[in-house]
Amino acid sequence: MHRYRSHTCAALRKTDVGSTVRIAGWVHRVRDHGGVLFIDLRDHYGITQVVADPDSPAFKTAETVRGEWVIRIDGLVKARTEDTVNKTMATGEIELYAQEIEVLSAAKELPLPVFGEPDYPEDVRLKYRFLDLRRETLHKNIVKRTQVISAMRREMGGAGFTEYSTPILTASSPEGARDFLVPSRIHPGTFYALPQAPQQYKQLLMVAGFDRYFQIAPCFRDEDPRADRLPGEFYQLDLEMSFVTQEDVWNTMGPLMTKVFEEFAEGKPVTKEWPRIPYDEAIRKYGSDKPDLRNPIVMEAVTEHFAGSGFKVFAGMIASNPKVQIWAIPARTGGSRAFCDRMNAWAQSQGQPGLGYIFWRKEGEKLEGAGPLAKNIGEERTDAIRTQLGLGDGDACFFVAGEPEKFYKFAGEARTKAGEELNLVDRDRFELCWIVDFPFFEWSEEEKKVDFAHNPFSMPQGGLDALQNQDPLTIKAFQYDAVCNGFEIASGSIRNQSPETMVAAFEKIGLTQQDVEDRFGGLYRAFQYGAPPHGGAAFGIDRIIMLLVGAKNLREISLFPMNQQAQDLLMGAPSPATPTQLRELAIRPIPPVKKD
Amino acid sequence: MHRYRSHTCAALRKTDVGSTVRIAGWVHRVRDHGGVLFIDLRDHYGITQVVADPDSPAFKTAETVRGEWVIRIDGLVKARTEDTVNKTMATGEIELYAQEIEVLSAAKELPLPVFGEPDYPEDVRLKYRFLDLRRETLHKNIVKRTQVISAMRREMGGAGFTEYSTPILTASSPEGARDFLVPSRIHPGTFYALPQAPQQYKQLLMVAGFDRYFQIAPCFRDEDPRADRLPGEFYQLDLEMSFVTQEDVWNTMGPLMTKVFEEFAEGKPVTKEWPRIPYDEAIRKYGSDKPDLRNPIVMEAVTEHFAGSGFKVFAGMIASNPKVQIWAIPARTGGSRAFCDRMNAWAQSQGQPGLGYIFWRKEGEKLEGAGPLAKNIGEERTDAIRTQLGLGDGDACFFVAGEPEKFYKFAGEARTKAGEELNLVDRDRFELCWIVDFPFFEWSEEEKKVDFAHNPFSMPQGGLDALQNQDPLTIKAFQYDAVCNGFEIASGSIRNQSPETMVAAFEKIGLTQQDVEDRFGGLYRAFQYGAPPHGGAAFGIDRIIMLLVGAKNLREISLFPMNQQAQDLLMGAPSPATPTQLRELAIRPIPPVKKD
Repeated sequence: MHRYRSHTCAALRKTDVGSTVRIAGWVHRVRDHGGVLFIDLRDHYGITQVVADPDSPAFKTAETVRGEWVIRIDGLVKARTEDTVNKTMATGEIELYAQEIEVLSAAKELPLPVFGEPDYPEDVRLKYRFLDLRRETLHKNIVKRTQVISAMRREMGGAGFTEYSTPILTASSPEGARDFLVPSRIHPGTFYALPQAPQQYKQLLMVAGFDRYFQIAPCFRDEDPRADRLPGEFYQLDLEMSFVTQEDVWNTMGPLMTKVFEEFAEGKPVTKEWPRIPYDEAIRKYGSDKPDLRNPIVMEAVTEHFAGSGFKVFAGMIASNPKVQIWAIPARTGGSRAFCDRMNAWAQSQGQPGLGYIFWRKEGEKLEGAGPLAKNIGEERTDAIRTQLGLGDGDACFFVAGEPEKFYKFAGEARTKAGEELNLVDRDRFELCWIVDFPFFEWSEEEKKVDFAHNPFSMPQGGLDALQNQDPLTIKAFQYDAVCNGFEIASGSIRNQSPETMVAAFEKIGLTQQDVEDRFGGLYRAFQYGAPPHGGAAFGIDRIIMLLVGAKNLREISLFPMNQQAQDLLMGAPSPATPTQLRELAIRPIPPVKKD
Repeated sequence: MHRYRSHTCAALRKTDVGSTVRIAGWVHRVRDHGGVLFIDLRDHYGITQVVADPDSPAFKTAETVRGEWVIRIDGLVKARTEDTVNKTMATGEIELYAQEIEVLSAAKELPLPVFGEPDYPEDVRLKYRFLDLRRETLHKNIVKRTQVISAMRREMGGAGFTEYSTPILTASSPEGARDFLVPSRIHPGTFYALPQAPQQYKQLLMVAGFDRYFQIAPCFRDEDPRADRLPGEFYQLDLEMSFVTQEDVWNTMGPLMTKVFEEFAEGKPVTKEWPRIPYDEAIRKYGSDKPDLRNPIVMEAVTEHFAGSGFKVFAGMIASNPKVQIWAIPARTGGSRAFCDRMNAWAQSQGQPGLGYIFWRKEGEKLEGAGPLAKNIGEERTDAIRTQLGLGDGDACFFVAGEPEKFYKFAGEARTKAGEELNLVDRDRFELCWIVDFPFFEWSEEEKKVDFAHNPFSMPQGGLDALQNQDPLTIKAFQYDAVCNGFEIASGSIRNQSPETMVAAFEKIGLTQQDVEDRFGGLYRAFQYGAPPHGGAAFGIDRIIMLLVGAKNLREISLFPMNQQAQDLLMGAPSPATPTQLRELAIRPIPPVKKD
């Protein structure tokens, strides 16, 4: 027989009854039922119930074992009696009568319980991560994480993509977030940087003639701790394709990601045909470029119904500024004064002056608009609004007014708030879409100049011609995001692979050809030697897995995460370097300035 | 039709004749045959021959295109005439008559030719890696590399392993090679380190209850440039298993790697049953712990044939020192004075006093041993040696004498030299084996104490008992290497998961429990809370791919390698940091000391 086990703890079935077997694992718990000991033995695969009665030669050892000890057990498989069969366990039809127990590794008193998974302070969980990871929920999440990534690899391979690993010790990237630096020992005074993303390398791969690249890519950003990003490293499903338009990227990745989601959605519906929603439309309808499409509320402009109306606040704004619009947030089933007042109070708590509303109720046979706004604008306008939005008895509508670019975020939040409060959001589904046609430039109020809205590597729609002849703030980019349930899960674009167009784009934001060469020398040089049209995307793996397992915290889906102070409590990093290391690297830490 | 292509450059066949199609790619070369232009258009998948004759509306553009321009071509597929069919090309039965050509990206004059792949200086190739990677051989190598890694992933998954990614920003590891350090911005004066290998994390995974781990793991060592290791990063197929003995690792990984090798061996035979050769035996037979088993020469001790013989040099050495042995290196077909003298001269060029030999030839009917040694020891002993080694007419034998631990390396080199010079080595096969039972400790002559021979994490054979009761230099470890054709391709062990045994092992080399805690705190702590027996290995992916593609240089199988001075010439790394970066990281480069 094998030294440690003939079966895993998930393997034994009724058909094994009568066999003598060997299993090994962790003591999940021990129960004493009238002198008979029941040991739940756990391994990666499952749990088997072991019985040791006082007649067993193993009883003496069984009495000594404690939770999380690692033991080997030889025993006889017996069928459970009908009333003790456990249908929720794979091994629930049998139990193992212990004949011999060997302690492979005893455990000290546990700083953190494994069985039962009570809440425990995060720092203890991180310091003893090897115990935390034994807990059922986290163990399952991590396994699911590996399965999701494995499914991504399989589907990408099936779609003709090849996985290439790009360098991790590379050059500092002047755009985007802050780099982690690595001092060079051989070239004192200089530094490598860890990649924020393999953006330039994947584009270089396309220029090098590889056609469909992907990578489960580690990315590094030295950012201050944020709730939605772990300090240090994170993973992207990074991809790039040659000779494609943006439709090719969408048509390839949409169905592929739907398949991956469906595999792990546990029966929840997943969008099959991803809507392609232009950025401007997303802002107009949902007040966000990451709309949660599970929320059925779609906003509409109702400006004309207020223009010249008896509601002088809105009418006056409309009259004095042609940019002013009034947006309606229809709220089905929200038609009570109590709910409308609650929304109004919430808006005030968000620093808004308030949230105007109308709600409709039957007065006898008549459908009547209620609330101060309805009174001010009169019956006809109230009913025109109701008709436009398709509302009826028991529904409400909220209004925000002003220049849309200033209020759309708040309008989006109000949409979310109303949808959630009224339970209009169907939580048990995955709603996916592409947000497309992002603006290429934006106005930087701070610097009083145009700046790239997103990715300087993207191709402007209309190309060089648009850059030369169009108001830059009206130029769209071949740039898109993928969104799921209100979260951005991917971002991508068709790249600007023309050196002239690249320089022209940078000139719009006040930079020169020399700046382009200095910042993106490798890529800019490459584009001069035959660069194919190409584009791609990067999917945020951590976010996708959080959505799929329903986790709220990144540490629930990460193997060995750092804490929010960017410390690895398990391994003790970061830590001081030795004098030898510092001398070899020719660097000196600057002591902190003491403050009196 | 698609914006850029209806087919790849490898897709068109005789069945497509008559279709109008669109292809896109790089101009591989242009030939002018009596006014008709032939363009070989290349993409990732293959090459298609395009024809533009002066009647074609595309002719004018065709005349302008140059090597490595990216173009799109619309045209009509025609069958080639029988005498122009090219059977070595997938598309060799057709050619495309161009109707329209669009230049997607012109190329400047090339610093490096793609077509024909003439030799070119390495620094130019690295600076213009995107061009270098278009060259057929390198492009193929890189694709094969991705396929090998993909096959490894597939086979590991099939064998029940799960891929987990372990952290890249981690703690400095006090053993082994030099770490790359990453200054922490949030904790000034402290540093993360990039992992030399995920050794501790994979063991922690086992303690955390995951059963079969693997990872295509990036590893980082800040070593001085070496021919067989690229500066910076390299990749391992890293794996670990719980509840296993070393036989389980061998039985799992041997057949699995054979399968991977066979898939890419292009018909060359691959060892199916890997021999398991104890370290001592490998040294004795091959003079190396990485023997090339394609070389049929097996050394043997022939000490007794020289003891008390007329060859006074050897006889005297044997008489005066019981450790002295004489090893024979049998060299079939080496039986000529010219060859034996050449070997002798080679030995002297290696700093040896010389290489004694005997060779055999027929004198009439009689087989006679020739050379000075044969004369000195006489016919009977000469023939006893010949019989022991199974040699005959036309064969030779070389002899090395002394204490084996001092001469075995040279003996191994002489074995290699003889095998290669005599063409005894069958180059067209992959000979794989396990070298097992490595010594746990070795004597450090420098420090005059015992030290770990290899891996301090390995379990000594005999465990705690051996450590307490055995001469440490006789203790073997559950430690093994995998070897292919003379190269170490993997190293592994069963780990020491007992805290007491771990401390006892470190005490033998003069360290204390406190040292263990300081150096391997995370792991040592973990072992106190229920650690399963576990073991594993790490396969060197770069070396395996070099063997499979027959590359001599790591840069022939790497995507974006650094040069030997650890510089990325393409992206310009390492480079100076900005003052802001240095201030944020609270470090200061120390200016080099100027020498007068």
